[in-house]
Parts: sequence; structure tokens; C-alpha cells
Amino acid sequence: MRKLFDKLSIYTDFYQFTMAQGYFENGMQNSPTAFDYFFRRNPFGGGYTIFCGLENLIDILENYQFDTDVLRYLKEQGFKQTFVDYLAEFKFKANIYAPNEGEVVFANEPVIRVEGNLIECQLVETLLLNLINFQSLIATKASRIRKVAGQKTFVDFGLRRAQGWSGMHASRAAVIGGADSSSNVLAGYYHGIPLNGTLGHSWIQSFENELTAFEKFAETYPNNCILLVDTYNTLESGVPNAIKIAKQMQSKRHKLNGIRLDSGDLAYLSRKARKMLDTEGLTEVKIYASNQLDEYLIRSLNEQGAPIDGYGVGTNLITAYNEPALDGVFKMCMVNNKPSMKISNDLFKTTLPGLKKIHRYFDEEGNFYRDCILLKDEVNTDVIHSPIFAEQNTNVKGLVKEDLLYPAMENGRRARQKQSIEEIKNYVKNRLALLPQYHQRFENPHTYKVGISPSLMKMRNEIVKRRSTSS
Amino acid sequence: MRKLFDKLSIYTDFYQFTMAQGYFENGMQNSPTAFDYFFRRNPFGGGYTIFCGLENLIDILENYQFDTDVLRYLKEQGFKQTFVDYLAEFKFKANIYAPNEGEVVFANEPVIRVEGNLIECQLVETLLLNLINFQSLIATKASRIRKVAGQKTFVDFGLRRAQGWSGMHASRAAVIGGADSSSNVLAGYYHGIPLNGTLGHSWIQSFENELTAFEKFAETYPNNCILLVDTYNTLESGVPNAIKIAKQMQSKRHKLNGIRLDSGDLAYLSRKARKMLDTEGLTEVKIYASNQLDEYLIRSLNEQGAPIDGYGVGTNLITAYNEPALDGVFKMCMVNNKPSMKISNDLFKTTLPGLKKIHRYFDEEGNFYRDCILLKDEVNTDVIHSPIFAEQNTNVKGLVKEDLLYPAMENGRRARQKQSIEEIKNYVKNRLALLPQYHQRFENPHTYKVGISPSLMKMRNEIVKRRSTSS
Repeated sequence: MRKLFDKLSIYTDFYQFTMAQGYFENGMQNSPTAFDYFFRRNPFGGGYTIFCGLENLIDILENYQFDTDVLRYLKEQGFKQTFVDYLAEFKFKANIYAPNEGEVVFANEPVIRVEGNLIECQLVETLLLNLINFQSLIATKASRIRKVAGQKTFVDFGLRRAQGWSGMHASRAAVIGGADSSSNVLAGYYHGIPLNGTLGHSWIQSFENELTAFEKFAETYPNNCILLVDTYNTLESGVPNAIKIAKQMQSKRHKLNGIRLDSGDLAYLSRKARKMLDTEGLTEVKIYASNQLDEYLIRSLNEQGAPIDGYGVGTNLITAYNEPALDGVFKMCMVNNKPSMKISNDLFKTTLPGLKKIHRYFDEEGNFYRDCILLKDEVNTDVIHSPIFAEQNTNVKGLVKEDLLYPAMENGRRARQKQSIEEIKNYVKNRLALLPQYHQRFENPHTYKVGISPSLMKMRNEIVKRRSTSS
Repeated sequence: MRKLFDKLSIYTDFYQFTMAQGYFENGMQNSPTAFDYFFRRNPFGGGYTIFCGLENLIDILENYQFDTDVLRYLKEQGFKQTFVDYLAEFKFKANIYAPNEGEVVFANEPVIRVEGNLIECQLVETLLLNLINFQSLIATKASRIRKVAGQKTFVDFGLRRAQGWSGMHASRAAVIGGADSSSNVLAGYYHGIPLNGTLGHSWIQSFENELTAFEKFAETYPNNCILLVDTYNTLESGVPNAIKIAKQMQSKRHKLNGIRLDSGDLAYLSRKARKMLDTEGLTEVKIYASNQLDEYLIRSLNEQGAPIDGYGVGTNLITAYNEPALDGVFKMCMVNNKPSMKISNDLFKTTLPGLKKIHRYFDEEGNFYRDCILLKDEVNTDVIHSPIFAEQNTNVKGLVKEDLLYPAMENGRRARQKQSIEEIKNYVKNRLALLPQYHQRFENPHTYKVGISPSLMKMRNEIVKRRSTSS
């Protein structure tokens, strides 16, 4: 276990090595190559995706290597000595282009390009997909929960239901996407995210009765006391006992921070509990809620006017329960220094050839308006075309624009300063503020248009034509 | 990153430390305590669950400690020096009782019991839930896929869609539950599971045309050649080119192992491809299929008589897509050496008090018939009661029985020989063979009855009564 994560270079699919050895044996290892990362659908039926996981990817690729244990293992799996020797010397030296981590991105735009030799591009495929798919999924989920939580507290409580070690990245992405803090101590230690947590039902059970349990907790944590009130009976025992404690604390010039509801009808119970607290003058004692929450349930609690001050969100956030995978893919767009593409019977699955960039155009109010995929060497375009229906186009002449992709790694080294979680989190917030609300609504969001430039369309169509003539 | 997994002792919820410090400050750290792990529903609407993850849990708990970096971090988070000093000396010395890894288990039976002091039981909660919930979920999913795959090949292809590092455990659990092998190289290295994989679309794109790409692959891998035939056009290009290669290989006394379909209508394409291959006398060339498969799609392919010899299963297996979390919980059943339970307004959420064991009774044909939860010190019971409707009971007098739980750790040390993946996998197979098919069907499976002994029922009812009298 201890040395496991020194070996992330083989956290990849076996076929990457099968192919890599084949390229090596055919003398193709230095062929200039590029791959694009993109996904075909924004998750959760939503209108956008938060791009997340880039900093972790860079950290790993900067230290990408095959140690002697791994090389021995690959040899045992049947790889040839010459190829294993090649891997022993292998360093990842490719260039990577990507948006800022935390960028708002959309389906079908190539948000990452890896440009290097054929083997290094191939080998990193699985790791890149694994990291970016998952963290983008969770950050997007968290941003949706933040949207309905508004200014209220929103904490990630999911670790116990996380998919094994996934919690390491999930808690990070949750905070980037909008959670204030997490219960996950190792994620806090490693990523520097704020931690949060008070007590569970077992604390209450450990004392002869609920009141004593509350008293002891309040004595131990006079400055951060949130009491869990549903162990026996929320309204008949938990809240009345919490009120007694709040008064005891007041008499010692301390303050009960809040109570937490973890079961039952949260709208009903929060209203009753609020009234009981307020009647006793405890208007500053907050009410927190948890138990199978997600963005829809929180919206419903809001609609019912439930007097809840903060939410703990677990399973539905940490696993992205209602859609637990983002369908990102990594497709070759250049090989042997020539543009390449996958031509599918299904036009929607046909990819875009060549080295590309993305422009984001802004409307007069300074909001995101359109994205356009161009060839890397194009300066700009006046017109952008629908990638599917060429006759659909938009004039973007004169609009303010930004380049979305820029170097994240150059020759295998980090090309930008590392961003802190706080910086990335703020970036998400600031960028989402530029995305009109009709792209952010949960139900049938307005599709944000991503087009292609005339030059890229021409290149794509010529390759398709050549291919169909030659076959 | 490198040292990350030395620090699994803090892969837990922050509130575990908040509570632990509270117990410590109240002098309760040595209070004899026990917790039960159970889940409330078998996943996927199924009738059983494969218990998985135990060996990993034992490995971690045998080395459970807080290193100086972690202790410093906890200090920074506000924990007191006396408590941090306690953690510096902390060793996990509890006893753990559990079934064999790979056991067929059912909802609402306490399959793990952790028995130790209050702090050690509390601290391991999150880690235990995280590991056992996830691996049990994935092993169960894999067992369902194996059921419909029958004797055919079934490979885990999911790593790229795994939830970050979750792949490390998911591939292990997939193989335990029924997959023959995995694409995940690091899981292969670490857990010793068999690996599998040949080539992707990028290999095909890396050569001037599909036929050359196939030729080069066949030259490089004459003994393990499976050709991916859907890069351009499956029936017009991929399969005809694969047939050419198969004949070239025959002439060199090699053999094309198979072709792989990765898109389109797999029932239609496999039938057409089979016919094309057979017409050329290539009856031994196998057909493999992948692309968003799960147990339902494979069953449908079976029903259509699709001539497919093996399946690669990705997203739906590795994330348990249709139900990505098992709802396992960890509830206190003893504290201060006395039986304890959570009494909920909801009878279904009331837990079972005390130290317990599980008997599994067999019917005359030697199949699993009933499970019963008893108090640990009971010898046996003649009658088992429904935990909800006491008047529902079953006579099990004279039936052959087994104890399901036995020591997995004693005083913090492994108490059984470590099992290999192959042994656990065989155990799953042998035990599922004893579970009648009506518990295994996908739609509305017959509920396997888990009852409680009269003595346990009596203890529970007395505690509930005492509680309601006293409050």
C-alpha cells in the first residue's frame, strides 16, 4: 500500500502498453502526435461543465516514470526487454494545452490537447480521462448545489459513501465547485481544504442520556457546538434538550452554534424547531440539515421556506449519484505530423482533425456568448458554423473574445504557476457569474453554442471526402 | 502524492476526531464498545450482496498509525496537545468479526462487528464504510454480469470512467465478483489480478489505412491478436480487412484470435460479422463486444442469440452506474460494556443491541434457507422471528447451520490467513451456487429471510420499553 502511488504511471489500461510496444517495434515512437480531450454531453442534463482536475494531472505527469518494480512487472506480463528498457528511460515531455482549472466549458469542445510523441500521448490517455472526467463531474455537481444553497453553508459529508479512494479527489472537486468545506480529513491535509464536523449518533449513545451527551459535548466544545437532535425523538427530546444546553451555555457566556437534523421531514422539523428555539429567544442558534440531500431537495426546501441555515451533502455529491460518470474521451487529432480524425457512421461521433484552439466570444453585457473551435494558426474568424449543420452560423465579427486554451505543460514541465484551491474556487464563481442563467437552469437549459471556424470545417470535410474516395 | 497513502488513518470524517477528543477528555477512551456494520437494501433491486473489501481493511488496520506530519496537522486544526499525544501512541487493537470475504450476505444483517475501546471503534468508522460499501457494491454488480455472461469472457474495461482512484478497488472487486480480468495495470500489479487489452482506435489512425494497421498489429502480436473493426466502417471495411489478416496469419501458421465490435448495433453487427467469418472458414475467430454494456444489455444480446464470445464492460461496472453507492452504516451496539441501540421513530431504522452472531441455515438440498441473528452467547435457536413483525416466525429446528461471522482481527492483528483474489473469487462462485435462483433473478427477486432469535428480540424490546418509560 505504502508505495502504491509512486506507481501511477501504470494506473492505465493494459492496451496502452500493447499499443506502445507496437509503435516502438515499428519505429514510430517519435512520430509527432496530438490527442484532444472532450466530452459529448454536459452532466446531469445541465447546460455547462466545470473543468476540474488539471493541477493533479500536471503534478503526476511531472513525475511520470517507471520504477524497477513496475518494469519487472511489465516484463512478467510479456513485454519485451527492448521495450522495457525504453520505458526505463521514459520521461513525459509533451505539451499540454488547457483552460484554467475551474473554467466553465461545454460539450464537444476539445478542452485539453496533448501534443508530443506517439507513445507519451498514448500512455497518458487513461490517467487523464480518469482524473478529468471524475473531478469535472463532481465540481459541476457541487456548483449546482451551491446555486440552490445560495449564501448558506454547504459542507461535503460524503466520504463514507465515496467510491473507495475516490474521496481524495471528490472532496477537492466538491470544494472547488462550491462546497465551503469537507468532512474528509485526508483531503484537508493533502489539498488544504477547510474541514468541518462535530458529532454523530454514537456520541449520544455513549452517555446515559441525551441531555448528558449534549452537556458533555458543550463543555468540550464551547466555541463550536452543533448538537445532533434526532437520535431518539427530534421534537420531543432532541430540540428541548438542545434548548436547555443553549441556556446553560448562555449562563457561561458561551453560545450554542446550532442544531443538526439528520432524518425525517426536514421542512416540517426545521420549521417546528425554529419556532421552539425562537420562542426561547434563541434566534441565533442555527439549524443545519443533512440526509440524502441533493440540488433538487435543497431547492424544494427553499421553496417551502424551510428555515435551514446550512446543508451537509453526502452520497449524492460524492458519487454524483444521479449520473456517476462523465463521458469524456481522448481522440487522436494529429499523427505523423498530419491532421487525423475518427470518421464514424454516426456524424455526432466524428471528431475534429488537426491542432485547434478555442475562442470564447462575449456579448455586449460582457457575458459568455459563443465558443468557437478554430485551427491553432488561425488569427480569428468572423463567422462560426454549427459542427453538424453547416448552414447554421453566427456572425461574431468585432466581438470581444478570449483564448480558452493555453500551455499547461511545456516539454513535460509545468508551464503555469500552480493554483490554490481557493484561487480555483474563486475562478469558478467568477466565471459562472458570466454564464447567463438560462444556461444554468436545471430543466432543459438553453444550449450554449459551440461552433467551428470555416477553415476547420474545410479541413474536416476534405479529410472525410478523401477517405470516402480512397476506401 | 508519494506519501499520501501512508496517512490512511486520517482518511476519515473530521467528526470522528472531534468525538474522539471528547471521549478522551471525558476519560471514556477505554470504555468497552462495539459497532455493527450493515446495509439496509441489497443493491440494484437484487436479492443478495457480495461481501467484499475485508482483506484491504485488515491490511490498513494492521498498520493504522498517526505519523508526525498528521499529528502536526491535527494540532493545527485545533486539537489539544494531550489528545494529539494520545494519538501519537495510538494503535488499533480491536477485534473484528466478519464473514469470509466473498460471502453472499443480505440486507439488515450485521455482517461486521468491531469490538474494542470507544476511540478505536469510532475512528475506523469512515474507512470501514468507505471500503466495504464500495467493494461490496462492485463485486455484486460483477456477479450479476457474470450471471448473464455465463461461460463467456467478461473483462473489466472501466478505468477511464472510474471515479478517480476508485479504480484501485473497483477492478479488484470486479474480478472477485466475476470478471475474468481487467484492463487496469496498477490493479494487476498490486492485487495480482489478470490483465487484458489489445488496441484502440488510435492504433488504427496511426497507420495510413486500416489494413496496414491490422497487418502491423498482427505482426507484432501473432499469438494474441484481436482486431478492433469499427474505426471506419465495421461491415464494409473492418471485418473484410480482418478476414484478409486472418488468412495472412493462417499462411504463417498463426491464428487471428478475434475481432472486437465497439459501437453500433452489437446484435446486428455480430451476426453479420459471424456470417462473413464463417463463410471464409474462419469459424474459430472469436467476436468480442464492448460499448456501454451492463447485465441487462448482455441479457438482451443473449436473448437475440447474438454470436458474441466475450464482453468488455466499462462505466456501468466500474461505477455501478445505475446505483453508485451501497447504503451501509456503522451503528453502535454496545457501549460501557452494555448493549446499546439507536431507537428511531422509524421502526425500520431501529438497530439491534448487543454482541451478536449470525447463523445460516440450509434446506434439505443443501441450499441457503434462512439467516438468523442471535446473541453471541446463544448456542442456537429453534425459532427465528421477523425483526419487524414478531408474529412471523420460522422453525429451523434440526436444520444444518453455519456460523457466518468469525474473527478477522484479534487485538488488532490479522486472525485468519490472507486470501488470494483467486480464492475469494472461487468462494463467491461456490456460495452463489447455494443461493436459489429465485433470490438471484433481476426482477423482483424473492426476499431471502433474515430473522432474529427470541432472546435478541427480548433484549431489543426491553431496551425500547425502558427508554420510552424513562423519557
